[in-house]
Parts: sequence; structure tokens; C-alpha cells
Amino acid sequence: MQKFSIPLPRVGNLPSGATDSITDIGAVTVGQFTLADGPLQTGVTVIKAHNESHWLHKVPAAATIFNGYGKSVGLMQVQELGVMETPVALTNTFSVSAVAHGQIEQAIIDHPSIGKEWTSVNPLVFECSDAHLNQMQALAVKPEHYRLALAATNKQFDQGAVGAGRGMSCYGLKGGVGSASRQARGELGYSVGALVLSNFGKPHQIQVPGYSGIAQRISAYLENKKSQRGQHTGPERGSIIIVLATDAPLDSRQLRRLSMRAVAGLARTGSMIGHGSGDIALAFSTAYTIPHHADEAMPTQGMLHEQKLDGLFEAAAEATEQAIWSSLWRAQTVWGRDDNVRFGIQEVLASIV
Amino acid sequence: MQKFSIPLPRVGNLPSGATDSITDIGAVTVGQFTLADGPLQTGVTVIKAHNESHWLHKVPAAATIFNGYGKSVGLMQVQELGVMETPVALTNTFSVSAVAHGQIEQAIIDHPSIGKEWTSVNPLVFECSDAHLNQMQALAVKPEHYRLALAATNKQFDQGAVGAGRGMSCYGLKGGVGSASRQARGELGYSVGALVLSNFGKPHQIQVPGYSGIAQRISAYLENKKSQRGQHTGPERGSIIIVLATDAPLDSRQLRRLSMRAVAGLARTGSMIGHGSGDIALAFSTAYTIPHHADEAMPTQGMLHEQKLDGLFEAAAEATEQAIWSSLWRAQTVWGRDDNVRFGIQEVLASIV
Amino acid sequence: MQKFSIPLPRVGNLPSGATDSITDIGAVTVGQFTLADGPLQTGVTVIKAHNESHWLHKVPAAATIFNGYGKSVGLMQVQELGVMETPVALTNTFSVSAVAHGQIEQAIIDHPSIGKEWTSVNPLVFECSDAHLNQMQALAVKPEHYRLALAATNKQFDQGAVGAGRGMSCYGLKGGVGSASRQARGELGYSVGALVLSNFGKPHQIQVPGYSGIAQRISAYLENKKSQRGQHTGPERGSIIIVLATDAPLDSRQLRRLSMRAVAGLARTGSMIGHGSGDIALAFSTAYTIPHHADEAMPTQGMLHEQKLDGLFEAAAEATEQAIWSSLWRAQTVWGRDDNVRFGIQEVLASIV
Amino acid sequence: MQKFSIPLPRVGNLPSGATDSITDIGAVTVGQFTLADGPLQTGVTVIKAHNESHWLHKVPAAATIFNGYGKSVGLMQVQELGVMETPVALTNTFSVSAVAHGQIEQAIIDHPSIGKEWTSVNPLVFECSDAHLNQMQALAVKPEHYRLALAATNKQFDQGAVGAGRGMSCYGLKGGVGSASRQARGELGYSVGALVLSNFGKPHQIQVPGYSGIAQRISAYLENKKSQRGQHTGPERGSIIIVLATDAPLDSRQLRRLSMRAVAGLARTGSMIGHGSGDIALAFSTAYTIPHHADEAMPTQGMLHEQKLDGLFEAAAEATEQAIWSSLWRAQTVWGRDDNVRFGIQEVLASIV
Repeated sequence: MQKFSIPLPRVGNLPSGATDSITDIGAVTVGQFTLADGPLQTGVTVIKAHNESHWLHKVPAAATIFNGYGKSVGLMQVQELGVMETPVALTNTFSVSAVAHGQIEQAIIDHPSIGKEWTSVNPLVFECSDAHLNQMQALAVKPEHYRLALAATNKQFDQGAVGAGRGMSCYGLKGGVGSASRQARGELGYSVGALVLSNFGKPHQIQVPGYSGIAQRISAYLENKKSQRGQHTGPERGSIIIVLATDAPLDSRQLRRLSMRAVAGLARTGSMIGHGSGDIALAFSTAYTIPHHADEAMPTQGMLHEQKLDGLFEAAAEATEQAIWSSLWRAQTVWGRDDNVRFGIQEVLASIV
Repeated sequence: MQKFSIPLPRVGNLPSGATDSITDIGAVTVGQFTLADGPLQTGVTVIKAHNESHWLHKVPAAATIFNGYGKSVGLMQVQELGVMETPVALTNTFSVSAVAHGQIEQAIIDHPSIGKEWTSVNPLVFECSDAHLNQMQALAVKPEHYRLALAATNKQFDQGAVGAGRGMSCYGLKGGVGSASRQARGELGYSVGALVLSNFGKPHQIQVPGYSGIAQRISAYLENKKSQRGQHTGPERGSIIIVLATDAPLDSRQLRRLSMRAVAGLARTGSMIGHGSGDIALAFSTAYTIPHHADEAMPTQGMLHEQKLDGLFEAAAEATEQAIWSSLWRAQTVWGRDDNVRFGIQEVLASIV
Repeated sequence: MQKFSIPLPRVGNLPSGATDSITDIGAVTVGQFTLADGPLQTGVTVIKAHNESHWLHKVPAAATIFNGYGKSVGLMQVQELGVMETPVALTNTFSVSAVAHGQIEQAIIDHPSIGKEWTSVNPLVFECSDAHLNQMQALAVKPEHYRLALAATNKQFDQGAVGAGRGMSCYGLKGGVGSASRQARGELGYSVGALVLSNFGKPHQIQVPGYSGIAQRISAYLENKKSQRGQHTGPERGSIIIVLATDAPLDSRQLRRLSMRAVAGLARTGSMIGHGSGDIALAFSTAYTIPHHADEAMPTQGMLHEQKLDGLFEAAAEATEQAIWSSLWRAQTVWGRDDNVRFGIQEVLASIV
Repeated sequence: MQKFSIPLPRVGNLPSGATDSITDIGAVTVGQFTLADGPLQTGVTVIKAHNESHWLHKVPAAATIFNGYGKSVGLMQVQELGVMETPVALTNTFSVSAVAHGQIEQAIIDHPSIGKEWTSVNPLVFECSDAHLNQMQALAVKPEHYRLALAATNKQFDQGAVGAGRGMSCYGLKGGVGSASRQARGELGYSVGALVLSNFGKPHQIQVPGYSGIAQRISAYLENKKSQRGQHTGPERGSIIIVLATDAPLDSRQLRRLSMRAVAGLARTGSMIGHGSGDIALAFSTAYTIPHHADEAMPTQGMLHEQKLDGLFEAAAEATEQAIWSSLWRAQTVWGRDDNVRFGIQEVLASIV
């Protein structure tokens, strides 16, 4: 387990799952491919909802777009049909096409009738721009990197400056991949896990719990660094992708409601959902699947009664906030293209606290 | 000016306008009618965008529905046409019809051709349920109460347990009407004002700035009061209506984006947007109007460039949060139907801090 | 059975149900109150999904708003929660408040805890403007008229210039209430019923099947009538409400998809969804209900597989188009306020064909 | 000019522009790349709104998703920001990634700061599945094919089985690219142009104007062809992309309203918006542009008054329907992969009429 010189904030009142990560939920696994090579600081992160073919056994899902300044693909069909039919992939903005291409190739490998006798497949790829650290124009992520990340899916996975999070920035500091989980309030026995790709915010906005007024000091610290001077003005250019998993039996309408609550966790870290930020939450359930083929039986699982959702909503808000803090606390300083740098928050806090 | 035994939290970094309320914006005025009579604890609050006929000079507007468990009327047409054509009215859930009726009557008085030679009018009425304190089934609000509130519109207005806020509850405490304003970051010269009708949340959720851990103590305090015992469990049944006004020239698409940012202020006070809560933000601009009649000239006012919105987004988030704290701090303890009571937060904090 | 001098067009390829109306579906019933008294030409139409309390046994439902220039109430909550908890009511634009008031009163009568110990109720009232024939400013519809319509619900009901349809206009002719049903293509055994309140369109737009070029002749006929001169220019001011019922087990997401298909039937009669028209389709299922109380069991009914929806989509489009023709063919000439008149299409066709 | 043995239906009442195609509107141009090589029958079609950089001079735009079973990319940002910043590209489902890649590469060539000092670019690529004729799994479309289509943009362009339309099927017949234009009713002086990629519908659904009952005869004709046997059952798997251009000054909210009206034209040809169909309409205006850089002046062009939209709505519905008929009439029989074939409607009608 990672040691923190400055303790990771522990937010909320609800208990965490065993690993305090999204893989606490059902059979969820995460895999990553990291590219860290001079001006290339980027990667791919993949989340699987279960261990079977997602195309044959579709996963109930829905999303909320808090701010649609983004280039993610696949959400239109998720919203129409209420399911996802591939794993969730995260990468940088200019690599969405390569990763979507990789998802199509993988689907054809798994099911040679796709796009021929059978219908096609809906790639589901989310992105944030890592242009500050990564030479994004190099289009360095290739379809095979998706397959490598997919092959690496596991219950255990790294957080911070890894996978799609390698080149991300958050509140002017180093952002990246973070995760957490919370058990729902009440007697439900269900949980919500969150995985975020954090890449949003300005230094003056961060609201670290227990460190009142820290935003001004972080801003001043960064402004005094020659490498950072003048970088943290101008409109927001970041993004955050939030993926929620739950083992509660929710239909897609309820999952959309759950995904909306991620914004509460996001806002509490200091975000006001900046103009240039693609802020999206996707939620899926591991409680049942929908068969692709019409001659297979539909699930008869009763859904959760609407009045029991509040406990899950609290868990979603807490898990999201915790995952963001985790992404920051676990991300170390990264130097990228053109001597650009983002400092890890621990290094910064150690200097100013 | 009201004196607080426990200081009203002052949140955010941006400067307030002269009155730190929504009437800092353009010609915006607010009027209220309060009914406080034993089991009847309710009322009406009206917001005018300007001093002319809203029907002849329509006001650019848009909304975001964070949670649609609510009975407000008029939003469908606002979303389609991008304008509001009446003042904004707030009241209790069962009185929406009476107030909408009042808006129609008023429109006919002002323009006798409405709904005859001319098209009809779109009432715009928002609501929260004050059923805990108010005998809502009495349907005590009448159409004429809308007219009384309208006639009372003024730059100065009361906050707290007044108007539509008379019977509202927030975080298990007394909620109601609150307002604030913030000047946008940057050189824009524009501001955002907020008026909220706060009626949401459970005691254990409140996150008062500077009072870490206060939620548990408030919860315990209320649970020890015989009058409150067992009241604060079960699913959320509240709501919040957030009205934002800005003098920035925004079109309806941009106003929708602005209205979304209210959720950041809401979440920071502790809300996770409960299941049973109708959580809605409406935003309007005072920078220009749209003529009703097609033979009048359309505005040639250039809209604000999209990249300049971040300053307004911060102002919207801060003003919303500030308005919620103001609604709580200015609301005094109210006893209502069946010996039900909601305590003012100052009274509670004075006992436990 | 009504005799038509000019045969009612029979559209589509699918078989109708026993009565070719919405009451072919499950336990659906329709009731109406008609006010036909000189300048007052209006009314209320009510559709019940089943014979139990809709509040205790909520009905899965969803809607599509083709054009949101309308004043209907209740859709926001239907979209959030995926259920309706009252019967569907139709009336004129200015009477929405009175009918919503009637729905609240009825809910309190049925369940005295509503809006007190229990949550409130979501009125669901749709409207079109009958201002041409009806003195809408008289606000003649009262809450008790809702109760009268509700008490009259039955498997048999009239169509044409009755109930909410009394004062409606369609393509410059007399519109009103129409209904039809279709059995889904394929081996499903499910059906879709439609009830429309038709109040849209200009004479030059109507596309009567089998009467090519009839629009120009109807336009000319009306223009020659002194009573109609100059009335059919200017922007669209009408509306159409389309209510679809199905006995197929669909969830709210699927019902939203079904409701979208109503637009195909609407467009084929000649509509291009005019600017000033509130064009809305609501769809509900009679296959199961959702309990209000959280301690009751949730349904375990498997939903219909997505790939089996096409048959229902065709039925929805055909039933909607048929219902519109039925509303026109069954509506007789009505004279209303200020010597205004709308002629029944049969009277007009008999003169020009 | 092409000769038709069976005349192309001429629908609607409004006059066409000079070429009866989308390039009648402002500076709009269309370019195509066609790949017709045995089992590869596919391509790319590109629509430019003007001759300048779309990234520097963004084009006001909006869309309506009639059915979201599709894999198009770029709509989320169009909906958030109300502009498109690349030309519109059309291709097959599995080639979206390649074409999006091509759009990114082109943007970097044109503006080397994109995705580095400047923000990134939002690819806008729509698709239909041509899997019946085209070996889609070959992923034969490459990024350079986008550039070839872009380089070929011109006021004159071919329709039918060309560009992205090469492998498309419509109502069981050969579909593809079609276009038309209509002048708005009234004294507006504005027009609407449509370009469709038609790839939807079953033979039994087609409603050819003036050929009542033709659907049954087409169905029977195809069923008698050995090459077609059993192909036209099962759920809808098609799609249609409809692109509307107008020279009227509309903002993005109004353009969304315009795009909705395309469904009226679509429905009149016989579509009921099948389950498996990605049915999307995008509308853009050529009347003004929005500068990318915040220091440039925003347009002061007054928008069209809302009450003047009906004329444009009629034009949108008519142009869409006409474009669909044009796509069918101009598409010749194409043989593709595995001896699959789609017959041109003229060949079929010549045999059965």
C-alpha cells in the first residue's frame, strides 16, 4: 500500500468496500496501458463490467452529460438502448478513433459475424485532453494498445499517472486515474464504485477538505514556479470522466439518475463545471445483463424501488469525491513534452503546508 | 440589517453586488405574499425580470432539471422557445394551479386579446412541498395572492421564512427564501444573482463551511428534541428551486449552461440531489428582450463569446451556495400544523456550538 | 355505428382491435365532460389505464415532445420517474389549472394522507387551445368537471366534437377526439391503441389518403366562405396530444421510444409540426404496475426484447394516423363564440368531391 | 441531366432552388470519394458550409436524434456549444474512426496549434451500415479518403450510389445519397436544402406518391427474386442521416427546431423510425459564423423571429422527402460482397408498373 506524506483525505460517512475501488463491485475489473516516453505521456484505461462477452451479455447503463465540450463516442446508443455492449475505454482526445477502432477489431475477433450477418458494435470511448504533457498530435495510441489494456484487466490496478491518466492535469496539478467505493446507507447491502479520469479545474478552485484556504497557497506556489508561470489563467480546458458501477438492480432510467449524483462529488472538490470541460458520468449495473439475441430470455430481476435510491445516491456522491482525491494523491509529478510539467499534489503540499 | 448571533458563512472568492441579492441585477425586483396563520404557513414569491410586460418583451431564459420529482409548470415552453413570458412565481406544491390561474388572469387583464385574437400565455410556476409545516391540503393560496405578491415587487425584499419560503424545511431545519449576488471573475463587468427556495436535505448531510462535523451534532440535537424524533429518516422529500439572473448578454443555450452550474453551489452545502427532491435551476438574462410581435425588430445585441463564460459560471456556483446559506440563516423557527416545527439554524447552532 | 357519407379513410396494413379504439387495450377506459353552450365550447377527456388507484399502482409511462409550445403539466416527473400516478386528462389551454386542481382534490379524497403524511401527487393534464370556437377567457372548466369526466370513464366513448375535443380545430376544419387501435406485426400478440386530441394544421397541408390534391380544394372552399376568410394564414397556433396505450411489457425507456413513433402517423396526415403547436405523445403500458409503497414487491415481469419493438412501432404509427382521421371524420360542424365556426370535413368533402 | 424511365416523384408545394440540391444554399459544397471494387462498395461524402476554415469560423448548428441506434460522433459538442467546427462527413459504420482520424489530421494540417497551444477539434462524422453490400469488416475506408472527398467539394455533385451512399439500402432497394432544396413559404426569401444518406426501411413500408399499393408489389417482386429471398424480414437494421442547410439567420435553438421537422419528410416516404435505425437530422445556417478566438467580434445579426419559422419548417419537411426520393431514383442496382445485391427502384418499377 502506498505511503502518503500528507494523508489522503477521507471524505463522507459511508463505509468503503474491501479495496476502496471500483473493482469492489461484482466482477468489475480494470486494465491499463501506459505510454511514458519523453514527449509521449498518455495511455488507455479499460473497465470491464463482467468476464463474459459484453456484446452477448449487454450491461445496463446510462449517462449524464454535465458539460458536453468533449469528443467521447458511444453515448448516443447507450442513451437510446440503455445498455453498453463493450467494455468502457478511456484515453486522450485525439486517440478516441484509434481506441474505437481497437474495440471494433476486438469485437470482430470475438464474434466474426458482427457487422456482417449480425449488427455492428457500438464503441464506447471517453476522453480527456492531455495536450499539456503529451504530444497529442503524435497520435501515439494505436488500436493494439486497447487490446493490451483489455488483456491486463484485473481486480488490482494502479491509480494516479497511469493508463489514460498518464498525462492528465487537475486543478493545475497532476491528475489521472482515481477510484473509490462506498456502501449505500441503509439496509440495502448494495455498493457504488467510482473510477475517475481527472483532468479539470484551476488551482484557485480546489477545495481540499481540512485545508481551508489552500487554493490560494497552491496558486501562489505554482505562479512562483518558472515552469508554471501564466499557465493557469484563461478558460477551463480540462475534463473529467466519471464511471460508476453498482451491484444494485437498477434499470437504465435509474442508472441515469445515479450518474447525475456524481456531480455532487465533483463539485465538492471545487469544480464549477468549467466551459471547456467535457464532464460526463456513466453508470452501469452488474446485477443482471440483457441478452443480445432476441430468442434468449429477458431478465426477471425486480428492480430496486425508487424510494430506496437515496442510499445509493449518497454512495455515488461520496465515491466520486473520494476517487478524485485518490487520483490527485496517487499521481506523482510528470514531465512531458516541451519541458511541460505537472506537480503531484503531495509534493506541492509538502512544500507549503 | 439583520444581526446574526452566529455569523452567516460568506463563501467563495468573488465580490458581491450592492445588496448581495438577485435585485442587484438590472431591473430585477422581488415581491412576496406570506400566509402565516396557525396550520397555514405558506405563500407566494414573485420575481420580475424587468418593469415592462413580460409577454410583450419576452425574457431570454433556460433551465436545468437536476431532479425532476416536481410539479412545476411552464418549463416545456421555456425550453422550446428560449424565453419566459411571465414573471417567475414560487409557491407550495398544491398551489401551483392557483398561482398559474393567477398568472393567466393577470395576463388577460394586461392584454385582453390573450387567448382570443392573440395566442395564450405560458404560466411559469415553481414549487416545493411545505407539507410538514403547512396544511397543504387546505389549498389556501388563491389566485389573488399571486397578484398581491406581484404588486409588492420591489428592489428590497425579505428573506427566510417569508413568501413561498414560509413553510419550507432545509436539512431538517427551517429553510425558505434566500438570495445573493456575485460579480463574474475577469474583466467582464457582468454579475449573477441567485434566489433560492430551499426545502431539501437531511440533517446528516449539511456541510456548513467552517463547522466540520456539525452535521452529526445537528442530527443528534434534533433527535433529542421530542418534536423532531424520527422525522429525519426515510427518503428525501424536499426540493430546491434556484433562479439565476444575469446582466450578461447570453442566449438561451448559454443560459442553460449557466443554470447547470447552480448544482455546484447546491452540492457544496451538502446535497446529493435526493430522490424525492424537485431540484431545478432557471436562468434568465436582463441584457435584452425578444418582442412578442413578429413585426418588431429582433435584438442585434452580440452574445458573449463562449470562452468568456467561466467567470459567470463561478459566479453562478458561488451565488447559489451563498443564497442557500442566506435562506437558512435568515429563517427563524416556525411552528405549523399539528404542532410540527422547524427550528432556525441560528437557534440550533447557538445551542450546540 | 356512425354512418359516413364520405368513407373514413382506413390507413395501414395492420388489423384493428375489436372497437378500433384505445379501450381495446387492457382495462383502459375513457370518460368525457362536454360543455356546449353558445360561446362556451369546450370540455374534459380522461383516460384511465386501469380500474385501481393510479397512485397506489403507478403506470409505466414516458413521452416525447415533438414541439414544446404548450402548457401541459406533469411531464417532468413522468420523465424522471417513468410512471404516471393519475389518469391522463385533456382540456383547453386555460383550463389546465382547474383540471390539475381537480386531480389533486380527487387524489386527496381517495388517499387522505396525500400531501400530508404521504408525498404529494403529480397532476397530468394536457391541453390544446380551442380559442377559436371557445371563449377560453371565461375559464369555464371547473375542477368538478374533471370528476364528472372521471366518473364517466367507460369502455365505450364518443369521438369527434366531444369532451376536450369540443372546440378544437384541425387543418382549418373541425377537429377533436379520435381513437384507433392496431395489432402489432409479427407473432407478438400485443397491440397499441391511440387517442388523439387533434387541433393542428392549416388547410393547405392536409394529405387525405386517396384524395390527392384535396388540400388546395379545401383551402379554396374555406376561403370562399365569408365566415372563414383570412383565417387560415399566419403561423400555426394549434396542437396535438397523442396518447398511446399498449399491453406489451415495456419499461419507460421503451415507452419513450414507442411514443416517438406517433410522429410518423402525425406527419402522414400532412403536419410538419408547426411552430405554434404543442405536439406531444405520451405512451403507457398496461402490462404491469409499480407499487407506490416501498415495502411492496416490485414487478418481476420480463420486458420485451428490444429487437421485437418494430411491430409495436408500426402499430403506433398506424394507430396515430387512424385516430387523427377518426377525429376529423367524427367531428361535426360547430359554431362557437363570436359567430366563429369550424366545418366538419364530411360536410366540406360532400360539397367539393 | 439524368433521364428517368419512371418519373422521379415531385413532392410538396414549394419551389425548388436552381439545382434542387443542398448546394443551392449559400456557399455550401459537397465532395465525395467512392470505393466500388468487388466486395468493397462504400465511400465518404463531405459537406462544407462555407469555403473558410470551419474551425476559425464556426457554423451554427444543432441536431435531433429521432432514433439513437447509431455510432455517429461529434453531436454531444454540437449540442453543448451550438456550432460545428469541421465539415460534415458521412461514411459507413465501421469507418467512422478512420474518417474522424482524417478530420483530426486535416485540422492539424490547417492549424498546427490545434491540440497543442490551442484546444482540440471536434470531428463530426455520421454513418449508416452498408454491411449488406460492403465487406464492412475490411475497414477499407482510410483517413486519406476523407481528404480526397474534401478536396472534391464542389457546387455540383452526384447522387445515388456514390460516396457514402455507394453501399446503402433503402426499403429493400438501392439507397444512397440524395438531395433537394425548397424555398420557404411566405415572403422570407430564405431556403432550406437537404442532403440525405438513405439506408432504412422495409419493402412493405414504402409509400411512393401516386403509386398506391406499390409496397406490396415491390415486396412480392423482391421475394420472388432468388437473390432477395428471406432478406426483408426481421427488425430494421438501417439508418438515415439527414443534413439540412439554410440561409436563414437561426440560432442553434432554432436550428434544432428546424432539424426536428425533417422527420415529417422521412415519415411520409413510409418510415416509422425502425428500432435498429440511427435516424438523425443535423441543421446548420450559412447566415453567419461564430469566431473561434474570443477577441474577435461576435455576430450582431438579428435572428429570425420565431413566428416566421413555419415557412422554413415546411421547406425542411418537403426538402427531406424530396431528397429521399431523389436518392432512390438516382441509385442504380449495385452488386456487392458475397453476391449480395440491391436493385435500383427504377429497374424494379419498370418491371412491375
